Amino acid sequence: MAELRRDPITRMWVVTATDHPKGPSDYLSFKPPYQLQEIEGPCPFCPGNEEETPRETFSIKQDGKSWAVRVIPNKYPFFRTEGEYDRRPEGMYDVMEAIGAHEIVIETPEHHQSLAFMESSQIRNILQAYQERLIDLEKDRRFEQFLILKNYPGLFNRHPHSHIMAMPVIPRRIDEEIWGILDYYQRKERCIFCDILREEISVRKRVITETVHFLVFAPFASRYPFETWIVPKAHRPDFHRLREEEIEDLSVAIQSLFLKFHRLLSDPPYSFTLHTSPVQERFHRPEFHWHIETRLRIGLREGFEWGTGFFVNPTPPEDAAAFLREIES
Amino acid sequence: MAELRRDPITRMWVVTATDHPKGPSDYLSFKPPYQLQEIEGPCPFCPGNEEETPRETFSIKQDGKSWAVRVIPNKYPFFRTEGEYDRRPEGMYDVMEAIGAHEIVIETPEHHQSLAFMESSQIRNILQAYQERLIDLEKDRRFEQFLILKNYPGLFNRHPHSHIMAMPVIPRRIDEEIWGILDYYQRKERCIFCDILREEISVRKRVITETVHFLVFAPFASRYPFETWIVPKAHRPDFHRLREEEIEDLSVAIQSLFLKFHRLLSDPPYSFTLHTSPVQERFHRPEFHWHIETRLRIGLREGFEWGTGFFVNPTPPEDAAAFLREIES
Repeated sequence: MAELRRDPITRMWVVTATDHPKGPSDYLSFKPPYQLQEIEGPCPFCPGNEEETPRETFSIKQDGKSWAVRVIPNKYPFFRTEGEYDRRPEGMYDVMEAIGAHEIVIETPEHHQSLAFMESSQIRNILQAYQERLIDLEKDRRFEQFLILKNYPGLFNRHPHSHIMAMPVIPRRIDEEIWGILDYYQRKERCIFCDILREEISVRKRVITETVHFLVFAPFASRYPFETWIVPKAHRPDFHRLREEEIEDLSVAIQSLFLKFHRLLSDPPYSFTLHTSPVQERFHRPEFHWHIETRLRIGLREGFEWGTGFFVNPTPPEDAAAFLREIES
Repeated sequence: MAELRRDPITRMWVVTATDHPKGPSDYLSFKPPYQLQEIEGPCPFCPGNEEETPRETFSIKQDGKSWAVRVIPNKYPFFRTEGEYDRRPEGMYDVMEAIGAHEIVIETPEHHQSLAFMESSQIRNILQAYQERLIDLEKDRRFEQFLILKNYPGLFNRHPHSHIMAMPVIPRRIDEEIWGILDYYQRKERCIFCDILREEISVRKRVITETVHFLVFAPFASRYPFETWIVPKAHRPDFHRLREEEIEDLSVAIQSLFLKFHRLLSDPPYSFTLHTSPVQERFHRPEFHWHIETRLRIGLREGFEWGTGFFVNPTPPEDAAAFLREIES
């Protein structure tokens, strides 16, 4: 089980596992290079091994074949649906149960596959799975915030998958965005993301691609080399209310971007995250502008970023955008 | 050269290199495992190669031998002393020159060495070098914030070294701490760090060691397995105003902690950072409580932390402290 502990100084919540390890010997399995290890044995995400996973919460079937996309509860969740929404003090500190949901979207039956080479219809299936699960999870009134996240390759299993999380608090990064959006709105009575879109479309030097409904660009203060945002041109707070034609258009934008990454750097590792407005009437923010942020996991300078909250980016976004623009996809 | 760009939404500054790469081929040197590579050839930090580094800004000599500690300007700095303190708009965005200082403390003449096995007198030399450089850098009124940082092993060179940085803005992490400290002070008229010390000394379960002047403990909302803070028991905003007996005591606390880490996990990689009050009369905060934060670079779950600002820690700090307490040092 896990609990949420709040840092009393910065007020940041930390998910703290409370499954106590037996002794220091548990840590000796951390050996160089001190990274999480891939699971061994047959892949539980491959077709034929469905019995080894918890029961699916959603799936899309294919004619004549197995499923096209499958969503399952995570066996090792950060947040669990069971339990009470319990907030309590511990000495001078604040604690709450890590209530929520943590599901895995198995993106394809194929063990070796990548967003760069999927059919855009398959990416549409994945986006549809995200949407359907959020619409369902939204009914649980304990959840304040959703997050969709993908690491490529996965940390424990390279079968393509992504995470859907429902959380009982609004995490720091989203909270900072909301704060910035509201502050800008108060000064200008305009959405800051809408203004950024106008600026980027007008100067063009950080734009990578533009589709009917989306702008794909390297943000001005990119924290990472080739950091890229996919932002809907229309102001919408909620990803899961997208219309079918927008999902269609987004799946093409995603496929094209990841193919560009693949061609530029021969299959680099990446992460992407989807930020959407908090849910429930009392937390929902119509001022929010949902979007996707992607970054390549290359050349990290983590000590400095960790110590300061200061990012160092060796690649100006204007250069990153220029290189990506020129690559065919 | 580098410039500071401000994220218009979160207001976070990013150090952006403006030495433009020549073309996409520059990026093809990023190959799996996509980490920064150690430099090749003779080590510029070893005795005898002093000519290959910029001229030193400080050193401590040893009787009969070469230097004991040497401080040099970083050849590849994030912040540079040359240039104007120039803040300007760029379209709708905010930019400033990355004015500051970035020096390297070469901690020992020995290429293969570690804080775990140094004499505590050598650690005292290193701490003295930090102090002397901060006292000198403080005279430059363009600098608002100092940061001391060490990665072990170093990302480019494993010769033991640490970084001293002087910055023209207060970075996000320090700013969050200041905000939390002032908010608590306003409510209680007490220092939150002083209260945390009282709580930890009273419950003891997260304490690792205690010396005359310092408490070494695993913080309640530890973000990382074995995250450890070294906090002075007396309320002091500035590290560089420490008295000699406190430095002496701190060097023993540091040596003991890193020996414990070494014995627990057989030489794990780690980072440490030293947070001290902003400088210059107009930014200085007497409410600040300087301290050191350390973490092991093991078992990272970075995608989630990056997407949410939410940390997941598989090791409760009470367990981490218990294991470290029991290890001899």
